[in-house]
Amino acid sequence: MTLRLIATGGTFDKHYDEIRGELTFADCHLPEVIRRTRMTMPVNLETLPLLDSLDMQDADRQRILASCRAAAEPAIVIIHGTDTMRETAQVLGAAALNKTIVLTGAMVPYEIAGSDALFNFGFAAGVAQTLPAGVYVAMNGQVFAWDRVRKNRAAGVFETVSGS
Amino acid sequence: MTLRLIATGGTFDKHYDEIRGELTFADCHLPEVIRRTRMTMPVNLETLPLLDSLDMQDADRQRILASCRAAAEPAIVIIHGTDTMRETAQVLGAAALNKTIVLTGAMVPYEIAGSDALFNFGFAAGVAQTLPAGVYVAMNGQVFAWDRVRKNRAAGVFETVSGS
Amino acid sequence: MTLRLIATGGTFDKHYDEIRGELTFADCHLPEVIRRTRMTMPVNLETLPLLDSLDMQDADRQRILASCRAAAEPAIVIIHGTDTMRETAQVLGAAALNKTIVLTGAMVPYEIAGSDALFNFGFAAGVAQTLPAGVYVAMNGQVFAWDRVRKNRAAGVFETVSGS
Amino acid sequence: MTLRLIATGGTFDKHYDEIRGELTFADCHLPEVIRRTRMTMPVNLETLPLLDSLDMQDADRQRILASCRAAAEPAIVIIHGTDTMRETAQVLGAAALNKTIVLTGAMVPYEIAGSDALFNFGFAAGVAQTLPAGVYVAMNGQVFAWDRVRKNRAAGVFETVSGS
Repeated sequence: MTLRLIATGGTFDKHYDEIRGELTFADCHLPEVIRRTRMTMPVNLETLPLLDSLDMQDADRQRILASCRAAAEPAIVIIHGTDTMRETAQVLGAAALNKTIVLTGAMVPYEIAGSDALFNFGFAAGVAQTLPAGVYVAMNGQVFAWDRVRKNRAAGVFETVSGS
Repeated sequence: MTLRLIATGGTFDKHYDEIRGELTFADCHLPEVIRRTRMTMPVNLETLPLLDSLDMQDADRQRILASCRAAAEPAIVIIHGTDTMRETAQVLGAAALNKTIVLTGAMVPYEIAGSDALFNFGFAAGVAQTLPAGVYVAMNGQVFAWDRVRKNRAAGVFETVSGS
Repeated sequence: MTLRLIATGGTFDKHYDEIRGELTFADCHLPEVIRRTRMTMPVNLETLPLLDSLDMQDADRQRILASCRAAAEPAIVIIHGTDTMRETAQVLGAAALNKTIVLTGAMVPYEIAGSDALFNFGFAAGVAQTLPAGVYVAMNGQVFAWDRVRKNRAAGVFETVSGS
Repeated sequence: MTLRLIATGGTFDKHYDEIRGELTFADCHLPEVIRRTRMTMPVNLETLPLLDSLDMQDADRQRILASCRAAAEPAIVIIHGTDTMRETAQVLGAAALNKTIVLTGAMVPYEIAGSDALFNFGFAAGVAQTLPAGVYVAMNGQVFAWDRVRKNRAAGVFETVSGS
């Protein structure tokens, strides 16, 4: 088995730019993260443009969908901003690709003390191998179905919503 | 669903004792780790005596088995040293408890730069919720059946062995 | 000897607010930093309002000056934002207090990987004990006189300017 | 001014060997540490054999002395194990080299959470530029004269002893 990992940015991958004094994107952290996990399973990393998910447009979600569609691997983990993770999950879920696609991200950037990034990535990499085909959000140590999840922005956690 | 987490020590939980100048055990890191993960699923943490797994005796494995047997939760993650993780998995696997039990640990202690601990814990917490009942070792981003796994000590990775 | 430490905010003390998704101020990191240094010299920590130094007004600099004037200790380290460190140094320098006052800060926040905060604090704590009375900026591993320093914002480093 | 930095090992530079499961020496951390400090002053790094200072022999101390003697720089920082830092300081102090030589180290390795290494290095780099010629131990946020210092091993701190 091989895992496809698609990096799209989000808080997980934010980097502190010391000249501008703000969090932005530079090199993707995923190559370092993958080394650090000591994964022996092959991982194919695909780096899409790194975006704050609040800045994502329809075309960006279509590009993610196209990557998922083109992927040869049956298990895909997508690193994504939390603010519109649900919207991307809905685009992917509606496409019904017959692959296991797991979106995850982080509340605190990988490079900041106390980050949840590495835990979330581990969690997503695990359930991507064990869940049936479908689209899922994996955050806060839980698996959510793509059509029954929302981010509670005031609390900073994901929660289940009743399906339609 | 509630997750049971059983801490037994191992490299994951080693602490640097600055007076003695060596790695040993002090307070268990799991309470901090759990907070950091931002898990919203309830987690019941049970801390057994923290041991280097090379120092584990039969009685120690029987105590872990007793904890698994007594647990009300159907999903259990055990933090364990890597050197005899296989031996404990065999004790638990032979008991056939009808629960999902996942052993994990770390090659580098949680408190040392570049540690795989948080990734491994996330991975294990994910697959513990999604795998059928059984006993598994979750290391190196892979799930191993309890009776088909060994640690390759020279390479520092877990690998599959043919079942008997 | 006792060292006075005055925290005023700046990049050194920025904290990532995971709900708002931005760097801001919360609890001052200095109590933790002081424990971590294992300093055996007594340190009196005074925490002024934590500010981005670009937001500092004249009144804020006067408050820092008042703290320096009131301090019983002959050696003072001030943690300060880098963008207007020079301006505060000039206010303090012009007051000619007959104490050794050293301003320092960080280019990368203490809680972000690769931060220079702990190095800069150590450097400042050292030279505050060894320099004659006066006002200094200690950044980039160098001591600058208060009236001969500026921040090169494009390069992100402090440099000497010819005195007037 | 240029600073000479001599790495000799010690706790500061210990690395966790994940195959052997113990702290040992691998590549010296100082090149990374120097980059991280954003020092603009030139630093010449000389890496001697990295040793636990309990393993240092007379020949090792003579080699450190020879490096100090040969150094063109008037200010030298030596990274050294804490257990025999005093002994090396005495060898260097007796040689009366007319340079400012500052020994420092760490109680917790650089790569372990909560390390004092970066603070100590900053402190030493500061006082090496500001103290008169002589040999000093810089630990716990204090400067000690080479002939009036000892490590209190039970408490894990350096302290002043009366001179002879």
